[in-house]
Amino acid sequence: MPSPLTFTITAECRSSAARVGRVETPHGSFETPAFMPIGTRGAIRGLTPEQVRLTGTQIILANAYHLLLRPGAERIAGLGGIHEFMRWSGPILTDSGGYQAFSMADISDVDEEGITFASIIDGSRCHLSPERSIEVQNQLGADIIMALDDCPPSADPEAPRPGGPARRGRRGAASPAGRADVDHPRRLRESHERTVRWLHRCVAAHARPQEQALFGIVQGGTDLDLRRAAVEAVCNVDLPGYAIGGVAVGEGPRLIHSVVEFTCPLMPPDKPRYLMGVGYERDLVAAVRAGADMFDCVLPTRNGRNASAFTRSGRIRLRNSQFGDDGRVIEPGCGCHTCSGGFSRAYLRHLFMANEMLGPILVSLHNIHHFQRLMLDIRRAIREDSWASLFGCWPVLERPLQEPLTGRGRGA
Amino acid sequence: MPSPLTFTITAECRSSAARVGRVETPHGSFETPAFMPIGTRGAIRGLTPEQVRLTGTQIILANAYHLLLRPGAERIAGLGGIHEFMRWSGPILTDSGGYQAFSMADISDVDEEGITFASIIDGSRCHLSPERSIEVQNQLGADIIMALDDCPPSADPEAPRPGGPARRGRRGAASPAGRADVDHPRRLRESHERTVRWLHRCVAAHARPQEQALFGIVQGGTDLDLRRAAVEAVCNVDLPGYAIGGVAVGEGPRLIHSVVEFTCPLMPPDKPRYLMGVGYERDLVAAVRAGADMFDCVLPTRNGRNASAFTRSGRIRLRNSQFGDDGRVIEPGCGCHTCSGGFSRAYLRHLFMANEMLGPILVSLHNIHHFQRLMLDIRRAIREDSWASLFGCWPVLERPLQEPLTGRGRGA
Repeated sequence: MPSPLTFTITAECRSSAARVGRVETPHGSFETPAFMPIGTRGAIRGLTPEQVRLTGTQIILANAYHLLLRPGAERIAGLGGIHEFMRWSGPILTDSGGYQAFSMADISDVDEEGITFASIIDGSRCHLSPERSIEVQNQLGADIIMALDDCPPSADPEAPRPGGPARRGRRGAASPAGRADVDHPRRLRESHERTVRWLHRCVAAHARPQEQALFGIVQGGTDLDLRRAAVEAVCNVDLPGYAIGGVAVGEGPRLIHSVVEFTCPLMPPDKPRYLMGVGYERDLVAAVRAGADMFDCVLPTRNGRNASAFTRSGRIRLRNSQFGDDGRVIEPGCGCHTCSGGFSRAYLRHLFMANEMLGPILVSLHNIHHFQRLMLDIRRAIREDSWASLFGCWPVLERPLQEPLTGRGRGA
Repeated sequence: MPSPLTFTITAECRSSAARVGRVETPHGSFETPAFMPIGTRGAIRGLTPEQVRLTGTQIILANAYHLLLRPGAERIAGLGGIHEFMRWSGPILTDSGGYQAFSMADISDVDEEGITFASIIDGSRCHLSPERSIEVQNQLGADIIMALDDCPPSADPEAPRPGGPARRGRRGAASPAGRADVDHPRRLRESHERTVRWLHRCVAAHARPQEQALFGIVQGGTDLDLRRAAVEAVCNVDLPGYAIGGVAVGEGPRLIHSVVEFTCPLMPPDKPRYLMGVGYERDLVAAVRAGADMFDCVLPTRNGRNASAFTRSGRIRLRNSQFGDDGRVIEPGCGCHTCSGGFSRAYLRHLFMANEMLGPILVSLHNIHHFQRLMLDIRRAIREDSWASLFGCWPVLERPLQEPLTGRGRGA
């Protein structure tokens, strides 16, 4: 059966496993390494598709979980599918909904059949099986869809749950699916094995394999033997692409890097490798050098909403009073709408202090552009094997690995 | 002294007092009749200046009251003025702050010296005199600035205060400046006389008369004798333009229309006439036919934020479940970003139900474009004396005058 997706590697790095490529989908192509901003509820918060496009974004991610609860996948299908619904004509990837079903519900429970959870909208009891997840994603109609995986908790019992610190107090630590415990190794193995069984059910349920590329997800936590077994089992299923899951759930940056560096080379070199939910600039570079091709992260938009602006030398918090009279743009020389449009730090600070939504909008535009510009520079560094020059232009890449580096479900 | 503003009438209607004109300011020109969207805190809520420009907007209004409280007019002056601050390179008008000082404060008091009020930000005691209002507006640096006026309450004791119904419960009806009472005729006359005395103080305080055009405000409520006296006293001061104030504070539409139709012809024909805070489509047309040239109103943005979309045949409330599967745009054939971009009513409804800020953004864009398109059609109707055709294209203009028509400070 012809795949809806073709992946062409156009350049390979001489000094690392990094590669530049192009992924063709039914809705156009995107260059890899690629960064996908997140449109959780069918919109990148506050931004029109045209504004998103002008940040350099070529593919976006939407959350099946949120859309199946509201407005409903059947409804979106009836309106012509997710592209038509949100007026994004380029490639879209939907996640399976499993991660959110685990991390966002007050109560969630997982068994062989699937995940049972309480809707975040009305508390009603919902069920997500591999078959239902694929049905939902078939209805949404994204170009790339994800297999439902059983997300194991972090190995670190002190690590926050995927939903992030803000949710901990509300839910406590007793949720059955979420927290690590003494049986963590057993739970990790079970999660991996179930993920493989669910993958086969996803493949069998997939009704639009000629239009939508299904990616499998490699789990295994920080257990490298388990990662190896997961790659073998998952990549044994012939799919258009594969993802590394479960590395953005609270581990420290060094652990994440070591898992990615171990896992990427085991995966098929001719298929796109998608590292889910990562992360900060240095994580992206480390993962790219290990051979990863696709990324998604809430950081640019979540930080943008919280007045935290990324620059090449680190983040600045625009609510800080030091910016009250600062007439400079966020990053002089930056080509984003916000900086090239001349919006000053003082003005942006004012917008946040006055609770004007233009503040989150302008900083999100800058932040997404920041990540897309980084990807552009990364692609050039791969082609030219010019990593020193990349690090020179992006001082933030040299900062010590102290803070948590994940960004899929965590606060910044 | 050369005026910073020139007004050229380019066409006059054969069957009414309406005229088409062009106002030249230090920051470019705008066509009249003109509609000004409101950027209360230095931003049209959620819209970039470029997006605002693409609605057809040529001049915007900013509120001196909000900006003097935060971030402060001195600060904006230090950053290069309001145009530079908010990155709107076209004409800007600032109001005096008096209306908000009356209507938004829990406590406000007016005497001959000025208005004393509690800041909406921190409750601190603030004072706005004619001299201070002009100083603030000189610092902001808008092209058109407004004299501080003593806004009288509505003649209708049942009418809501200018701040609107949502604020009534919080403040009650006992505020000294706000409510009508048995002494209303006396208060109205006092307000008019004080407004004239304050106008002279504003003129004397105006430090940038070659760069900023000061407009005087004609008060007088619904007392036509008082309106006549106000026009004589205010327009006796040689200014680049004049405004009609105090007609959007709760009167019914017929009363507003009769005041405007009485007052406009008394005002100098060679100066722009600005009707403050009005209104719905039919109010604009009635006022244009009476000879008014400039308008401002919160309706397009406030309604936009509340999921209420204007169409040529009336408003639609997008939260209504009937739109859940409606794949049509708000108004088929509309050239705004939202309609021409193909965003469906179903998608917009979803955004509002999901509390996504893209909903208010897209509907505000449509609503502002709706008003700007109306002004474009009005200008054509004046040139061609083709009012029947205008009414044919805009069925909303024929709807009965039942609901309140004001929109400056009132909910829709």
